[in-house]
Amino acid sequence: MTQIQSQALGYSVDGLAFEGRLLFDAADQAPRPALLMAPNWFGVSEGAQEIAAQVASRGYRVLLVDLYGATLRPASPAEAGAAMLPLKQDRSLLRRRLLAALDALRGQSVTAIDGTRLAAFGFCFGGTCALELARAGAPLKAAVSFHGSLDTPDAADARRIQGAVLVLDGALDPLVPREQLPAFAKEMGDAGVDWQLLSYGGAVHSFTDPDAKVPGTSQYDAKVSRRAFAAMYALLDEVFA
Amino acid sequence: MTQIQSQALGYSVDGLAFEGRLLFDAADQAPRPALLMAPNWFGVSEGAQEIAAQVASRGYRVLLVDLYGATLRPASPAEAGAAMLPLKQDRSLLRRRLLAALDALRGQSVTAIDGTRLAAFGFCFGGTCALELARAGAPLKAAVSFHGSLDTPDAADARRIQGAVLVLDGALDPLVPREQLPAFAKEMGDAGVDWQLLSYGGAVHSFTDPDAKVPGTSQYDAKVSRRAFAAMYALLDEVFA
Repeated sequence: MTQIQSQALGYSVDGLAFEGRLLFDAADQAPRPALLMAPNWFGVSEGAQEIAAQVASRGYRVLLVDLYGATLRPASPAEAGAAMLPLKQDRSLLRRRLLAALDALRGQSVTAIDGTRLAAFGFCFGGTCALELARAGAPLKAAVSFHGSLDTPDAADARRIQGAVLVLDGALDPLVPREQLPAFAKEMGDAGVDWQLLSYGGAVHSFTDPDAKVPGTSQYDAKVSRRAFAAMYALLDEVFA
Repeated sequence: MTQIQSQALGYSVDGLAFEGRLLFDAADQAPRPALLMAPNWFGVSEGAQEIAAQVASRGYRVLLVDLYGATLRPASPAEAGAAMLPLKQDRSLLRRRLLAALDALRGQSVTAIDGTRLAAFGFCFGGTCALELARAGAPLKAAVSFHGSLDTPDAADARRIQGAVLVLDGALDPLVPREQLPAFAKEMGDAGVDWQLLSYGGAVHSFTDPDAKVPGTSQYDAKVSRRAFAAMYALLDEVFA
Protein backbone atom coordinates (compact mmCIF):
# COMPACT_ATOMS: atom_id res chain seq x y z
CA MET A 1 0.00 0.00 0.00
CA THR A 2 1.32 3.37 -1.04
CA GLN A 3 2.05 5.72 1.86
CA ILE A 4 0.46 9.09 1.07
CA GLN A 5 1.79 12.15 2.80
CA SER A 6 -0.46 15.12 3.61
CA GLN A 7 1.09 18.53 4.06
CA ALA A 8 -0.38 21.99 4.52
CA LEU A 9 -0.03 24.35 1.59
CA GLY A 10 -0.70 28.03 2.21
CA TYR A 11 -1.55 30.79 -0.23
CA SER A 12 -3.38 34.09 -0.06
CA VAL A 13 -6.08 35.83 -2.07
CA ASP A 14 -7.23 39.43 -1.65
CA GLY A 15 -5.22 39.63 1.60
CA LEU A 16 -6.86 36.57 3.14
CA ALA A 17 -4.82 33.48 4.12
CA PHE A 18 -5.84 30.05 2.86
CA GLU A 19 -4.53 26.63 3.78
CA GLY A 20 -5.11 23.65 1.52
CA ARG A 21 -3.61 20.18 1.86
CA LEU A 22 -1.15 18.69 -0.56
CA LEU A 23 -1.34 14.89 -0.83
CA PHE A 24 1.37 12.87 -2.53
CA ASP A 25 3.49 9.76 -2.44
CA ALA A 26 6.78 11.09 -1.06
CA ALA A 27 8.61 7.91 -2.12
CA ASP A 28 7.86 8.72 -5.75
CA GLN A 29 10.03 11.66 -6.78
CA ALA A 30 9.27 11.74 -10.49
CA PRO A 31 7.19 14.65 -11.81
CA ARG A 32 3.56 13.51 -11.78
CA PRO A 33 0.30 15.02 -13.05
CA ALA A 34 -1.18 17.47 -10.59
CA LEU A 35 -4.86 17.61 -9.67
CA LEU A 36 -6.78 20.29 -7.88
CA MET A 37 -9.53 18.73 -5.77
CA ALA A 38 -12.43 20.97 -4.76
CA PRO A 39 -14.20 19.40 -1.77
CA ASN A 40 -17.89 19.55 -0.93
CA TRP A 41 -19.31 22.39 1.16
CA PHE A 42 -17.56 21.15 4.30
CA GLY A 43 -14.28 22.23 2.78
CA VAL A 44 -10.98 20.76 4.01
CA SER A 45 -12.46 17.94 6.12
CA GLU A 46 -11.18 14.53 7.17
CA GLY A 47 -13.49 12.87 4.63
CA ALA A 48 -12.16 15.08 1.86
CA GLN A 49 -8.58 14.24 2.82
CA GLU A 50 -9.40 10.54 2.60
CA ILE A 51 -10.68 10.95 -0.95
CA ALA A 52 -7.67 13.06 -1.88
CA ALA A 53 -5.34 10.39 -0.48
CA GLN A 54 -7.05 7.68 -2.50
CA VAL A 55 -6.66 9.69 -5.68
CA ALA A 56 -3.03 10.53 -4.83
CA SER A 57 -2.32 6.81 -4.40
CA ARG A 58 -3.02 6.41 -8.13
CA GLY A 59 0.11 8.41 -8.89
CA TYR A 60 -1.20 11.97 -8.79
CA ARG A 61 -0.21 15.03 -6.75
CA VAL A 62 -3.46 16.33 -5.29
CA LEU A 63 -4.12 19.74 -3.82
CA LEU A 64 -7.23 19.66 -1.64
CA VAL A 65 -8.17 23.28 -2.06
CA ASP A 66 -9.25 25.61 0.72
CA LEU A 67 -11.86 28.05 -0.55
CA TYR A 68 -13.03 29.54 2.74
CA GLY A 69 -9.85 30.82 4.39
CA ALA A 70 -7.49 29.11 6.81
CA THR A 71 -9.51 29.92 9.92
CA LEU A 72 -12.93 28.89 8.59
CA ARG A 73 -13.69 25.18 8.99
CA PRO A 74 -17.46 24.53 8.98
CA ALA A 75 -18.61 22.08 11.65
CA SER A 76 -22.27 21.76 10.66
CA PRO A 77 -24.37 21.90 7.48
CA ALA A 78 -25.57 25.36 8.56
CA GLU A 79 -21.99 26.59 8.85
CA ALA A 80 -21.04 24.92 5.59
CA GLY A 81 -23.95 26.58 3.80
CA ALA A 82 -23.04 29.97 5.25
CA ALA A 83 -19.43 29.54 4.13
CA MET A 84 -20.36 28.37 0.64
CA LEU A 85 -23.14 30.77 -0.27
CA PRO A 86 -21.07 33.93 -0.87
CA LEU A 87 -18.84 31.97 -3.26
CA LYS A 88 -21.74 30.38 -5.10
CA GLN A 89 -23.21 33.83 -5.61
CA ASP A 90 -19.97 35.55 -6.61
CA ARG A 91 -18.35 33.43 -9.29
CA SER A 92 -15.68 36.04 -9.86
CA LEU A 93 -14.52 35.73 -6.24
CA LEU A 94 -14.75 31.95 -6.46
CA ARG A 95 -12.63 31.89 -9.60
CA ARG A 96 -9.95 34.11 -8.04
CA ARG A 97 -9.60 31.70 -5.14
CA LEU A 98 -9.51 28.68 -7.41
CA LEU A 99 -6.91 30.22 -9.70
CA ALA A 100 -4.77 31.19 -6.69
CA ALA A 101 -4.92 27.62 -5.43
CA LEU A 102 -3.90 26.31 -8.83
CA ASP A 103 -1.00 28.76 -8.88
CA ALA A 104 0.05 27.53 -5.44
CA LEU A 105 -0.04 23.94 -6.65
CA ARG A 106 2.04 24.79 -9.71
CA GLY A 107 4.49 26.91 -7.73
CA GLN A 108 5.15 24.67 -4.73
CA SER A 109 8.36 22.69 -4.43
CA VAL A 110 7.24 20.10 -1.90
CA THR A 111 6.53 17.44 -4.49
CA ALA A 112 7.50 17.18 -8.15
CA ILE A 113 4.70 17.83 -10.60
CA ASP A 114 4.43 17.74 -14.36
CA GLY A 115 3.10 21.23 -14.93
CA THR A 116 1.85 20.36 -18.40
CA ARG A 117 -0.50 17.76 -16.98
CA LEU A 118 -3.06 19.53 -14.80
CA ALA A 119 -6.69 18.73 -14.08
CA ALA A 120 -9.40 19.55 -11.53
CA PHE A 121 -12.16 17.53 -9.95
CA GLY A 122 -14.67 18.13 -7.21
CA PHE A 123 -17.74 16.98 -5.33
CA CYS A 124 -21.13 18.71 -4.97
CA PHE A 125 -20.23 22.42 -4.66
CA GLY A 126 -16.69 21.32 -5.50
CA GLY A 127 -17.96 19.90 -8.80
CA THR A 128 -19.24 23.36 -9.65
CA CYS A 129 -15.80 24.69 -8.66
CA ALA A 130 -14.00 22.31 -11.04
CA LEU A 131 -16.19 23.55 -13.87
CA GLU A 132 -15.70 27.17 -12.81
CA LEU A 133 -11.93 26.79 -12.87
CA ALA A 134 -12.19 25.46 -16.41
CA ARG A 135 -14.55 28.30 -17.38
CA ALA A 136 -11.98 30.75 -15.96
CA GLY A 137 -9.58 29.58 -18.66
CA ALA A 138 -7.19 27.61 -16.45
CA PRO A 139 -4.82 25.35 -18.41
CA LEU A 140 -6.52 22.13 -17.36
CA LYS A 141 -6.45 18.98 -19.47
CA ALA A 142 -9.68 17.92 -17.77
CA ALA A 143 -12.32 19.13 -15.34
CA VAL A 144 -14.51 16.54 -13.62
CA SER A 145 -17.64 17.25 -11.60
CA PHE A 146 -19.16 14.66 -9.27
CA HIS A 147 -22.83 15.56 -8.55
CA GLY A 148 -22.17 19.29 -8.89
CA SER A 149 -24.47 22.04 -10.09
CA LEU A 150 -24.00 22.88 -13.75
CA ASP A 151 -25.32 26.43 -13.84
CA THR A 152 -23.21 29.35 -14.95
CA PRO A 153 -23.78 33.11 -14.84
CA ASP A 154 -22.46 33.56 -18.37
CA ALA A 155 -22.58 30.69 -20.85
CA ALA A 156 -20.04 32.46 -23.07
CA ASP A 157 -17.33 31.76 -20.47
CA ALA A 158 -17.30 28.18 -21.70
CA ARG A 159 -15.32 29.37 -24.70
CA ARG A 160 -12.31 29.68 -22.38
CA ILE A 161 -12.40 25.99 -21.48
CA GLN A 162 -9.16 24.40 -22.65
CA GLY A 163 -9.56 20.72 -21.81
CA ALA A 164 -12.11 17.93 -21.62
CA VAL A 165 -15.11 18.19 -19.32
CA LEU A 166 -16.75 15.22 -17.61
CA VAL A 167 -19.92 15.49 -15.55
CA LEU A 168 -20.88 12.57 -13.30
CA ASP A 169 -24.54 13.00 -12.48
CA GLY A 170 -27.11 11.22 -10.36
CA ALA A 171 -30.15 10.87 -12.61
CA LEU A 172 -32.41 11.51 -9.59
CA ASP A 173 -30.28 14.24 -7.97
CA PRO A 174 -32.82 16.73 -6.57
CA LEU A 175 -30.11 19.28 -5.81
CA VAL A 176 -29.05 19.55 -9.44
CA PRO A 177 -32.29 20.62 -11.15
CA ARG A 178 -32.87 18.52 -14.26
CA GLU A 179 -33.39 21.60 -16.42
CA GLN A 180 -29.68 22.35 -15.90
CA LEU A 181 -28.79 19.37 -18.11
CA PRO A 182 -30.04 20.66 -21.49
CA ALA A 183 -28.78 24.15 -20.59
CA PHE A 184 -25.34 22.73 -19.85
CA ALA A 185 -25.38 20.71 -23.07
CA LYS A 186 -26.15 23.89 -24.98
CA GLU A 187 -23.49 25.89 -23.12
CA MET A 188 -20.81 23.30 -23.85
CA GLY A 189 -22.00 22.61 -27.39
CA ASP A 190 -22.12 26.29 -28.38
CA ALA A 191 -18.57 26.71 -27.09
CA GLY A 192 -17.29 23.61 -28.88
CA VAL A 193 -16.07 22.03 -25.66
CA ASP A 194 -15.02 18.37 -25.55
CA TRP A 195 -17.59 17.31 -22.97
CA GLN A 196 -19.30 14.19 -21.63
CA LEU A 197 -22.13 13.73 -19.17
CA LEU A 198 -22.71 10.41 -17.46
CA SER A 199 -26.11 9.96 -15.82
CA TYR A 200 -26.35 7.21 -13.23
CA GLY A 201 -29.79 5.68 -12.83
CA GLY A 202 -31.15 5.59 -9.30
CA ALA A 203 -28.45 7.88 -7.94
CA VAL A 204 -29.21 11.05 -5.98
CA HIS A 205 -26.91 13.76 -4.60
CA SER A 206 -23.61 12.92 -2.86
CA PHE A 207 -23.42 9.40 -4.28
CA THR A 208 -19.65 9.34 -3.62
CA ASP A 209 -19.94 10.32 0.05
CA PRO A 210 -20.06 7.39 2.54
CA ASP A 211 -21.51 9.78 5.15
CA ALA A 212 -24.50 10.79 2.98
CA LYS A 213 -27.52 8.95 4.33
CA VAL A 214 -30.70 10.81 3.35
CA PRO A 215 -32.69 8.48 1.05
CA GLY A 216 -34.01 10.17 -2.07
CA THR A 217 -31.94 13.31 -1.54
CA SER A 218 -28.32 12.78 -0.64
CA GLN A 219 -27.15 9.19 -0.35
CA TYR A 220 -24.02 7.14 -0.83
CA ASP A 221 -24.10 4.54 -3.61
CA ALA A 222 -21.02 2.31 -3.54
CA LYS A 223 -21.50 0.91 -7.04
CA VAL A 224 -22.16 4.27 -8.65
CA SER A 225 -19.25 5.81 -6.76
CA ARG A 226 -16.90 3.11 -8.09
CA ARG A 227 -18.18 3.64 -11.61
CA ALA A 228 -17.81 7.40 -11.38
CA PHE A 229 -14.23 7.28 -10.10
CA ALA A 230 -13.39 4.74 -12.81
CA ALA A 231 -14.82 7.15 -15.40
CA MET A 232 -12.64 9.96 -14.05
CA TYR A 233 -9.51 7.81 -14.05
CA ALA A 234 -10.24 6.68 -17.62
CA LEU A 235 -10.47 10.29 -18.75
CA LEU A 236 -7.29 11.26 -16.87
CA ASP A 237 -5.46 8.35 -18.49
CA GLU A 238 -6.67 9.58 -21.85
CA VAL A 239 -5.84 13.28 -21.50
CA PHE A 240 -2.49 12.70 -19.78
CA ALA A 241 -1.36 9.99 -22.23
CA MET B 1 -2.54 -10.44 -32.87
CA THR B 2 -5.35 -12.80 -32.04
CA GLN B 3 -6.73 -14.72 -35.03
CA ILE B 4 -10.51 -14.44 -34.97
CA GLN B 5 -12.53 -17.05 -36.79
CA SER B 6 -15.90 -16.21 -38.36
CA GLN B 7 -18.39 -18.99 -38.94
CA ALA B 8 -22.01 -19.03 -40.10
CA LEU B 9 -24.59 -19.89 -37.46
CA GLY B 10 -28.08 -20.74 -38.67
CA TYR B 11 -31.36 -20.70 -36.79
CA SER B 12 -35.00 -20.33 -37.71
CA VAL B 13 -37.92 -18.25 -36.47
CA ASP B 14 -41.54 -18.63 -37.54
CA GLY B 15 -40.41 -20.96 -40.33
CA LEU B 16 -37.92 -18.48 -41.78
CA ALA B 17 -34.19 -19.29 -41.97
CA PHE B 18 -31.62 -16.89 -40.50
CA GLU B 19 -27.85 -16.90 -40.74
CA GLY B 20 -25.75 -14.95 -38.26
CA ARG B 21 -21.99 -15.05 -37.88
CA LEU B 22 -20.19 -16.43 -34.88
CA LEU B 23 -16.82 -14.78 -34.17
CA PHE B 24 -14.33 -16.27 -31.77
CA ASP B 25 -10.70 -17.04 -31.07
CA ALA B 26 -10.49 -20.72 -31.98
CA ALA B 27 -7.13 -21.05 -30.21
CA ASP B 28 -8.82 -20.24 -26.91
CA GLN B 29 -10.92 -23.22 -25.87
CA ALA B 30 -11.95 -22.10 -22.40
CA PRO B 31 -15.61 -21.13 -21.86
CA ARG B 32 -15.85 -17.37 -22.43
CA PRO B 33 -18.62 -14.80 -21.96
CA ALA B 34 -20.95 -14.67 -24.94
CA LEU B 35 -22.20 -11.47 -26.54
CA LEU B 36 -25.01 -10.96 -28.98
CA MET B 37 -24.17 -8.11 -31.35
CA ALA B 38 -27.07 -6.43 -33.14
CA PRO B 39 -25.71 -4.59 -36.19
CA ASN B 40 -27.00 -1.37 -37.72
CA TRP B 41 -29.73 -1.40 -40.37
CA PHE B 42 -27.38 -2.92 -42.96
CA GLY B 43 -27.49 -6.17 -41.01
CA VAL B 44 -24.74 -8.78 -41.42
CA SER B 45 -22.31 -6.60 -43.38
CA GLU B 46 -18.53 -6.60 -43.75
CA GLY B 47 -18.30 -3.56 -41.48
CA ALA B 48 -20.36 -5.26 -38.81
CA GLN B 49 -18.13 -8.33 -38.98
CA GLU B 50 -15.07 -6.14 -38.46
CA ILE B 51 -16.56 -4.69 -35.29
CA ALA B 52 -17.60 -8.14 -34.09
CA ALA B 53 -14.06 -9.43 -34.70
CA GLN B 54 -12.56 -6.57 -32.69
CA VAL B 55 -14.84 -7.31 -29.77
CA ALA B 56 -14.17 -11.05 -30.04
CA SER B 57 -10.43 -10.34 -29.86
CA ARG B 58 -11.00 -9.08 -26.30
CA GLY B 59 -11.87 -12.62 -25.21
CA TYR B 60 -15.57 -12.79 -26.03
CA ARG B 61 -17.64 -15.11 -28.21
CA VAL B 62 -19.71 -12.82 -30.40
CA LEU B 63 -22.82 -13.70 -32.37
CA LEU B 64 -23.44 -11.10 -35.05
CA VAL B 65 -27.18 -11.57 -35.28
CA ASP B 66 -29.18 -11.80 -38.49
CA LEU B 67 -32.58 -10.18 -38.03
CA TYR B 68 -33.72 -10.09 -41.65
CA GLY B 69 -33.47 -13.71 -42.81
CA ALA B 70 -30.62 -15.51 -44.54
CA THR B 71 -31.52 -14.36 -48.06
CA LEU B 72 -32.04 -10.66 -47.25
CA ARG B 73 -28.84 -8.61 -47.32
CA PRO B 74 -29.58 -4.91 -47.93
CA ALA B 75 -27.25 -3.24 -50.43
CA SER B 76 -28.46 0.36 -50.10
CA PRO B 77 -29.92 2.62 -47.43
CA ALA B 78 -33.32 2.25 -49.11
CA GLU B 79 -33.11 -1.53 -48.91
CA ALA B 80 -31.85 -1.35 -45.33
CA GLY B 81 -34.73 0.90 -44.34
CA ALA B 82 -37.24 -1.41 -45.99
CA ALA B 83 -35.77 -4.41 -44.18
CA MET B 84 -35.66 -2.68 -40.81
CA LEU B 85 -39.03 -0.94 -40.75
CA PRO B 86 -41.30 -3.97 -40.17
CA LEU B 87 -39.15 -4.96 -37.19
CA LYS B 88 -39.08 -1.48 -35.73
CA GLN B 89 -42.85 -1.38 -35.95
CA ASP B 90 -43.44 -4.87 -34.58
CA ARG B 91 -41.41 -5.20 -31.41
CA SER B 92 -42.96 -8.58 -30.67
CA LEU B 93 -41.60 -9.97 -33.95
CA LEU B 94 -38.25 -8.28 -33.30
CA ARG B 95 -38.02 -9.82 -29.84
CA ARG B 96 -38.82 -13.32 -31.14
CA ARG B 97 -35.96 -13.07 -33.61
CA LEU B 98 -33.57 -11.72 -31.00
CA LEU B 99 -34.48 -14.40 -28.48
CA ALA B 100 -34.06 -17.11 -31.13
CA ALA B 101 -30.60 -15.77 -31.94
CA LEU B 102 -29.67 -15.77 -28.28
CA ASP B 103 -30.89 -19.36 -28.00
CA ALA B 104 -28.76 -20.28 -31.00
CA LEU B 105 -25.73 -18.68 -29.38
CA ARG B 106 -26.33 -20.53 -26.13
CA GLY B 107 -27.04 -23.83 -27.86
CA GLN B 108 -24.20 -23.95 -30.40
CA SER B 109 -21.20 -26.18 -29.85
CA VAL B 110 -18.75 -24.47 -32.21
CA THR B 111 -17.03 -22.49 -29.46
CA ALA B 112 -17.14 -22.83 -25.68
CA ILE B 113 -19.18 -20.20 -23.89
CA ASP B 114 -19.89 -19.46 -20.26
CA GLY B 115 -23.68 -19.50 -20.39
CA THR B 116 -23.96 -17.58 -17.13
CA ARG B 117 -22.14 -14.60 -18.64
CA LEU B 118 -24.26 -13.21 -21.45
CA ALA B 119 -24.70 -9.67 -22.72
CA ALA B 120 -25.93 -7.82 -25.80
CA PHE B 121 -24.78 -4.73 -27.61
CA GLY B 122 -25.71 -3.00 -30.81
CA PHE B 123 -25.41 0.02 -33.07
CA CYS B 124 -28.13 2.43 -34.27
CA PHE B 125 -31.15 0.15 -34.89
CA GLY B 126 -29.04 -2.57 -33.26
CA GLY B 127 -28.81 -0.46 -30.11
CA THR B 128 -32.58 -0.50 -29.94
CA CYS B 129 -32.39 -4.28 -30.44
CA ALA B 130 -30.01 -4.72 -27.50
CA LEU B 131 -32.46 -2.83 -25.29
CA GLU B 132 -35.42 -4.80 -26.69
CA LEU B 133 -33.72 -8.10 -25.89
CA ALA B 134 -33.24 -6.92 -22.30
CA ARG B 135 -36.87 -5.72 -22.16
CA ALA B 136 -37.93 -9.17 -23.38
CA GLY B 137 -36.50 -10.60 -20.15
CA ALA B 138 -33.45 -12.31 -21.63
CA PRO B 139 -30.89 -13.38 -18.99
CA LEU B 140 -28.35 -10.71 -19.92
CA LYS B 141 -25.84 -9.33 -17.46
CA ALA B 142 -25.70 -6.17 -19.58
CA ALA B 143 -27.29 -4.51 -22.59
CA VAL B 144 -25.39 -1.74 -24.34
CA SER B 145 -26.77 0.61 -26.98
CA PHE B 146 -24.52 2.71 -29.21
CA HIS B 147 -26.52 5.62 -30.68
CA GLY B 148 -29.75 3.64 -30.71
CA SER B 149 -33.31 4.86 -30.32
CA LEU B 150 -34.60 4.55 -26.78
CA ASP B 151 -38.34 4.42 -27.38
CA THR B 152 -40.46 1.49 -26.29
CA PRO B 153 -44.08 0.61 -26.97
CA ASP B 154 -44.69 -0.36 -23.33
CA ALA B 155 -42.56 1.16 -20.57
CA ALA B 156 -43.67 -1.56 -18.15
CA ASP B 157 -41.59 -4.11 -20.10
CA ALA B 158 -38.53 -2.60 -18.45
CA ARG B 159 -39.47 -4.51 -15.31
CA ARG B 160 -38.26 -7.66 -17.04
CA ILE B 161 -34.75 -6.29 -17.47
CA GLN B 162 -32.35 -8.51 -15.54
CA GLY B 163 -28.97 -6.84 -15.97
CA ALA B 164 -27.28 -3.47 -16.28
CA VAL B 165 -28.17 -1.09 -19.11
CA LEU B 166 -25.70 1.32 -20.69
CA VAL B 167 -26.70 3.87 -23.33
CA LEU B 168 -23.96 5.57 -25.33
CA ASP B 169 -25.50 8.65 -26.85
CA GLY B 170 -24.39 11.43 -29.18
CA ALA B 171 -25.57 14.64 -27.52
CA LEU B 172 -26.40 16.07 -30.95
CA ASP B 173 -27.84 12.88 -32.48
CA PRO B 174 -30.75 14.11 -34.62
CA LEU B 175 -32.00 10.55 -35.18
CA VAL B 176 -32.53 9.93 -31.48
CA PRO B 177 -34.99 12.69 -30.56
CA ARG B 178 -33.85 14.42 -27.37
CA GLU B 179 -37.25 13.98 -25.75
CA GLN B 180 -36.52 10.25 -25.65
CA LEU B 181 -33.90 10.83 -22.95
CA PRO B 182 -36.15 11.89 -20.05
CA ALA B 183 -38.73 9.31 -21.13
CA PHE B 184 -36.06 6.62 -21.05
CA ALA B 185 -34.83 7.82 -17.66
CA LYS B 186 -38.38 7.54 -16.35
CA GLU B 187 -38.92 4.12 -17.92
CA MET B 188 -35.72 2.74 -16.38
CA GLY B 189 -36.19 4.52 -13.06
CA ASP B 190 -39.77 3.35 -12.60
CA ALA B 191 -38.65 -0.22 -13.24
CA GLY B 192 -35.69 0.01 -10.86
CA VAL B 193 -33.21 -0.88 -13.58
CA ASP B 194 -29.45 -0.47 -13.03
CA TRP B 195 -28.93 1.97 -15.90
CA GLN B 196 -26.43 4.55 -17.13
CA LEU B 197 -26.55 7.02 -20.00
CA LEU B 198 -23.41 8.60 -21.35
CA SER B 199 -23.89 11.68 -23.53
CA TYR B 200 -20.98 12.62 -25.75
CA GLY B 201 -20.73 16.32 -26.58
CA GLY B 202 -20.48 17.14 -30.26
CA ALA B 203 -21.37 13.63 -31.37
CA VAL B 204 -24.18 12.88 -33.81
CA HIS B 205 -25.58 9.56 -35.08
CA SER B 206 -23.31 6.64 -36.04
CA PHE B 207 -20.28 7.98 -34.19
CA THR B 208 -18.78 4.47 -34.14
CA ASP B 209 -19.10 3.91 -37.89
CA PRO B 210 -16.01 4.82 -39.97
CA ASP B 211 -18.23 4.91 -43.07
CA ALA B 212 -20.60 7.54 -41.63
CA LYS B 213 -19.77 10.83 -43.31
CA VAL B 214 -22.77 13.16 -43.17
CA PRO B 215 -21.78 16.16 -41.00
CA GLY B 216 -24.37 17.11 -38.42
CA THR B 217 -26.40 13.95 -38.93
CA SER B 218 -24.45 10.74 -39.09
CA GLN B 219 -20.70 10.99 -38.70
CA TYR B 220 -17.79 8.98 -37.39
CA ASP B 221 -15.95 10.38 -34.37
CA ALA B 222 -12.80 8.39 -33.60
CA LYS B 223 -12.34 9.81 -30.10
CA VAL B 224 -15.95 9.34 -29.06
CA SER B 225 -15.97 5.85 -30.57
CA ARG B 226 -12.91 4.88 -28.51
CA ARG B 227 -14.50 6.30 -25.37
CA ALA B 228 -17.78 4.51 -25.99
CA PHE B 229 -16.16 1.11 -26.56
CA ALA B 230 -14.05 1.64 -23.44
CA ALA B 231 -17.22 2.36 -21.47
CA MET B 232 -18.76 -0.87 -22.75
CA TYR B 233 -15.68 -2.91 -21.89
CA ALA B 234 -15.57 -1.39 -18.41
CA LEU B 235 -19.17 -2.41 -17.80
CA LEU B 236 -18.58 -5.92 -19.16
CA ASP B 237 -15.56 -6.29 -16.89
CA GLU B 238 -17.75 -5.23 -13.97
CA VAL B 239 -20.78 -7.44 -14.64
CA PHE B 240 -18.74 -10.50 -15.63
CA ALA B 241 -16.30 -10.20 -12.70
